[in-house]
Amino acid sequence: MQQINYNPIGIINTPFNSQEDMPIQGIGGKGIKATIEIYPEFTAGLKDLDGFSHIILLYHLHLVKNHALIVKPFMDDKQHGIFATRSPVRPNPIGMTVVRLTEIRDNLLIVEDIDIIDQTPLLDIKPCLPMIDDIQGLRLGWLTGKIDQFTDKRSDNRFSAFQGTSKE
Amino acid sequence: MQQINYNPIGIINTPFNSQEDMPIQGIGGKGIKATIEIYPEFTAGLKDLDGFSHIILLYHLHLVKNHALIVKPFMDDKQHGIFATRSPVRPNPIGMTVVRLTEIRDNLLIVEDIDIIDQTPLLDIKPCLPMIDDIQGLRLGWLTGKIDQFTDKRSDNRFSAFQGTSKE
Repeated sequence: MQQINYNPIGIINTPFNSQEDMPIQGIGGKGIKATIEIYPEFTAGLKDLDGFSHIILLYHLHLVKNHALIVKPFMDDKQHGIFATRSPVRPNPIGMTVVRLTEIRDNLLIVEDIDIIDQTPLLDIKPCLPMIDDIQGLRLGWLTGKIDQFTDKRSDNRFSAFQGTSKE
Repeated sequence: MQQINYNPIGIINTPFNSQEDMPIQGIGGKGIKATIEIYPEFTAGLKDLDGFSHIILLYHLHLVKNHALIVKPFMDDKQHGIFATRSPVRPNPIGMTVVRLTEIRDNLLIVEDIDIIDQTPLLDIKPCLPMIDDIQGLRLGWLTGKIDQFTDKRSDNRFSAFQGTSKE
């Protein structure tokens, strides 16, 4: 099976230093500011990004060193398959958040509504487009009726066992 | 700078064998079916995914071997920074599409509304949640007024120069 190699395009600086007591999705981090430093060799790729109000961040969940296929997510007390959750301990630990873009200064992006831990390596930025939103008949499986929790529910230490280096 | 290594969790089988004349986003591939094979060692992670009507696929754009920071995307005749576009020739070529999940048979997902080329390696599946959609005051920069094009505009060969192995 082919291995895929990526290099960070920048680093995400946030006020969150611990994986506990964090917002679970961007909506739960409403108003919380972060600064994203884009490495100089990629800065040219930011041209015209300032016209977009919201951007999608894809980032490497660098604290996750082991994965689980069945998890009990923050939103529920039942177990679900990892791919039916947004839990961080994924086989490929790629995080995704929509944030509000408030300013670009040279290679620095100032964003709001963040749910990301400090010093997270950034993989990609995409403009947030409304067709993702324009979905008829959205069904939410086990999350039905629990969505409002994203606004104020916070993380705990349930995934801390997946940190540390798995090889040690 | 740290290198990040991922391994595919499955493979996406679609009717698109060429990068030309493809839908540009999932909305443009409305009704087009694809079968995603999840590798057996990850199948347990699919538990309860069948409750969700729409899922987010993250995948490796395996034909992209070189990147560009300034591109002329399918949607416009002007140049924009790569991060202000959904163009494939990104520094880390990760693709993202929201598709409709119609059926799960063991380790096979049957999905619709696809804009992905055949044999694309799958990196992650996430449930599609409405908070991504619940955005007030979305501004669309250079894409303002062009969004309807996603429905029927098709790709061309403008990114073919980025294919092939860069090392050869």
